[in-house]
Amino acid sequence: MPKIAYINSKYIKFNEAKIHIEDRGLQFADSVYEVVAIYKKNLVDFDFHIKRLKYSLKELLINFKVDKNKLKNIFNKLISLNKINNGIIYLQITRGVQAREHVYNNKLKSNIIIYARHKKFNLPNNKFKGEKAVTCEDLRWKRRDIKTVNLLPNIIAANFASKHKAYEAILIQNNKITEGTSSNIWIVKNKKLFTHPSNTDILKGITRETLRILIQQTKLKLVEKSFTKKQLFNADEVFLTSSGSCVTPITKIDSKLINGGKIGNITLNLAKLYSKSFMNE
Amino acid sequence: MPKIAYINSKYIKFNEAKIHIEDRGLQFADSVYEVVAIYKKNLVDFDFHIKRLKYSLKELLINFKVDKNKLKNIFNKLISLNKINNGIIYLQITRGVQAREHVYNNKLKSNIIIYARHKKFNLPNNKFKGEKAVTCEDLRWKRRDIKTVNLLPNIIAANFASKHKAYEAILIQNNKITEGTSSNIWIVKNKKLFTHPSNTDILKGITRETLRILIQQTKLKLVEKSFTKKQLFNADEVFLTSSGSCVTPITKIDSKLINGGKIGNITLNLAKLYSKSFMNE
Repeated sequence: MPKIAYINSKYIKFNEAKIHIEDRGLQFADSVYEVVAIYKKNLVDFDFHIKRLKYSLKELLINFKVDKNKLKNIFNKLISLNKINNGIIYLQITRGVQAREHVYNNKLKSNIIIYARHKKFNLPNNKFKGEKAVTCEDLRWKRRDIKTVNLLPNIIAANFASKHKAYEAILIQNNKITEGTSSNIWIVKNKKLFTHPSNTDILKGITRETLRILIQQTKLKLVEKSFTKKQLFNADEVFLTSSGSCVTPITKIDSKLINGGKIGNITLNLAKLYSKSFMNE
Repeated sequence: MPKIAYINSKYIKFNEAKIHIEDRGLQFADSVYEVVAIYKKNLVDFDFHIKRLKYSLKELLINFKVDKNKLKNIFNKLISLNKINNGIIYLQITRGVQAREHVYNNKLKSNIIIYARHKKFNLPNNKFKGEKAVTCEDLRWKRRDIKTVNLLPNIIAANFASKHKAYEAILIQNNKITEGTSSNIWIVKNKKLFTHPSNTDILKGITRETLRILIQQTKLKLVEKSFTKKQLFNADEVFLTSSGSCVTPITKIDSKLINGGKIGNITLNLAKLYSKSFMNE
């Protein structure tokens, strides 16, 4: 368990870290968040996370001025206080506390919550492995581009996956793949890469963004275009990306093996390319 | 402000009523709730609320055994401790606290939060008035039949309404009216009543349910069938129902007056019928 958390300018014992029952994050999911990976005490893709956080706050008109340097100092202090080597920072900003009513007061003071946890990453080393995924219907709302805690449909799908001993659920909307419950989904077909375009149907993942830029340095061609369930099952390789899962190969979907159940070469090379990008930072 | 709240078997000062930052209600909207009206210290439609609460918990597989009599006692004690005459009870049950991960542990202990607030109702007396509504797109997820705090799209729509000085936003999906952000919508056309059928597209409102039963005692015909935006604008009368708003006439939608901007007779009679049902309890 973490030792110390940060809430509204104070460092407090984690088990005493609490917020009021009329916080709008708790009563209405009126809140945004970010999860930042920590590798060897260093923050991964920090600037991209800050950029997305600002976007989420702006879209929801939440009054919180992001001070990038201040946040970086808090993150680093939590890494140190909690003795994290590899792990994640969790940051949540709620609209604030108000007598319960759907309509919010424009002058609320946001609550900011930050803490760090240990986590192991699935890196392309001797223990690198492919995972199973299941497909299920995408039940989510229509603004998935905003990183909010309005996550109940993701929870239902992730538990459906867990029940079927799968690592992730791949979400399907009108026969098209959108993304995973907490990851972006990519396929490889005839040496071309495909992933859903970044619009309101998916969250623009930070690892997706970093990998997209890294791919430009290779000979691979990336097509940002949605693909069907049939294309998913007939792919040469499938993988997912997220801050917590980095590049993780998917070698089985439902009962179908992908690439004979083995990690594909393109996936392996991209996993190496991605991990190098922050290992050498 | 309320004086005393109830959290997990304890009565505590409202301003000290807090929950942990890793509660799944705060991090994932993994939580259900009910709002019960209090009229002259009495709980309105209590049994219906308990029935729906059980349904919501069951659909989300949240481990919480509802003890109806125990809840009634807590509600009544809060009404007494907080000196409420007319108001509401807010009840929220979260899946519990867990190290943050989408997949939940099946053995979590739920957190239960209950408090009471004063509230005035829009009853059919001398001050009874019609309200304005606006229409907007229904951005919500696909399981609106479960009463969860996954409410961010409702918040966005309610604030859109507030910005346009309207009482409620009427949500539209594929050109059909679903419901309001926190109410069910009804229209009257040629002395017939129409409201959306209770399926996964709407929340089966408690006041909707009570009124549906009361209507059976009248000569009015109710058709539970979805209706279009055009039918809404061409209705003879429009009203909404909710535990907090009872039967509230809608006399203007966007820039269009309904029934010349006046409360219709059928709406007025139904508001009287509904208010009598609990005033005389």
